[in-house]
Amino acid sequence: MANGKISMTVIRRLPKYHRYLKDLLEKGINRISSKELSEIIGFTASQIRQDLNNFGGFGQQGYGYNVEDLYSEIGTILGLGKPYKTVIIGAGNLGQALANYNFESHGFELVGMYDVDEALIGKKIKGIEIKPSDRLVEDCVIHQVDIAYLCTNRESAQNVANALVKCGVRAIWNFTPVDLKVPEETTIVEDVHLIDSLLTISYFLKDH
Amino acid sequence: MANGKISMTVIRRLPKYHRYLKDLLEKGINRISSKELSEIIGFTASQIRQDLNNFGGFGQQGYGYNVEDLYSEIGTILGLGKPYKTVIIGAGNLGQALANYNFESHGFELVGMYDVDEALIGKKIKGIEIKPSDRLVEDCVIHQVDIAYLCTNRESAQNVANALVKCGVRAIWNFTPVDLKVPEETTIVEDVHLIDSLLTISYFLKDH
Repeated sequence: MANGKISMTVIRRLPKYHRYLKDLLEKGINRISSKELSEIIGFTASQIRQDLNNFGGFGQQGYGYNVEDLYSEIGTILGLGKPYKTVIIGAGNLGQALANYNFESHGFELVGMYDVDEALIGKKIKGIEIKPSDRLVEDCVIHQVDIAYLCTNRESAQNVANALVKCGVRAIWNFTPVDLKVPEETTIVEDVHLIDSLLTISYFLKDH
Repeated sequence: MANGKISMTVIRRLPKYHRYLKDLLEKGINRISSKELSEIIGFTASQIRQDLNNFGGFGQQGYGYNVEDLYSEIGTILGLGKPYKTVIIGAGNLGQALANYNFESHGFELVGMYDVDEALIGKKIKGIEIKPSDRLVEDCVIHQVDIAYLCTNRESAQNVANALVKCGVRAIWNFTPVDLKVPEETTIVEDVHLIDSLLTISYFLKDH
């Protein structure tokens, strides 16, 4: 399998391969060439071969890829198959939207939702009761939470992140517009900065 | 200004510069060296100089950057300052969360929200009434909508995208897990594939 460092660009393409291979499996397709894969996924065939070579190359000359093997291998590379425990902090519209996504099917189990808003506390989303934020730290320790989905307001974001680091949460999925400062050795931050994404649209529209 | 093609990687960093420069302006800081900018933004000083050189280089040796000029120049490059008209399709939790973001302050004016769910139709979010989806096309034409935030379910996504292309909407901000097929010449698609982002976390957690 993977030897040496794989570039961020390649890593970011893996989930897309994973999605498409799942679709193929569901359609009962079990063998595919890099050319066919290229047509449905939109990367060039040579790009695909190069990407997959990073992980030891599962294709066979004249046969192509075995969809099931490739799907399962990429899943393993992506660290899927293990269960991850997750919490949502900030249970407003965005937090509730995330709770309603079907992330469980990929192994991300939601074990808690937290908010400071009295109007939300006690409400149940997908069977999970929204609890007051002061319960967060204790729950994270008890459940050994792996990933926190951070949907608080801008002002609370860094403080909540500090608390998460202290109680051993290993990753923060950050939906706030804040660039969090956390120790790299202990904590992974994955940003979803929506405004940055929207400004990219604006850049392209400008001359469109 | 920009001559030749600027790489996607650089373009994707511009919104971050824009955010940080805004913070500096609000703090009354009007002059900054690439080294100081590096410390707060987290890119190396040489990276910063290289990035900004792409756009003609606004820094002066021994002086650094004028924050206000740089902020306004990057804003222009990003196509800000012009007003954009936007609609939200799919007014569930995610759609409502997007309506509540403060995108107006960057020039993105929300002019309509649409859903098929009778329980949502008629509800007002930030003064915008959720309308039935069959009003979408007519409204897009009347208002000359620039950007559609696509928050429908997976099954409707491509059909709605086709309708948007037909009525001249120039960009789709795609929150569905579908890779939309639209004509490149007419329509920009910017994906926010949440599951891809979450799987990246899983990749890094695996060996963490």
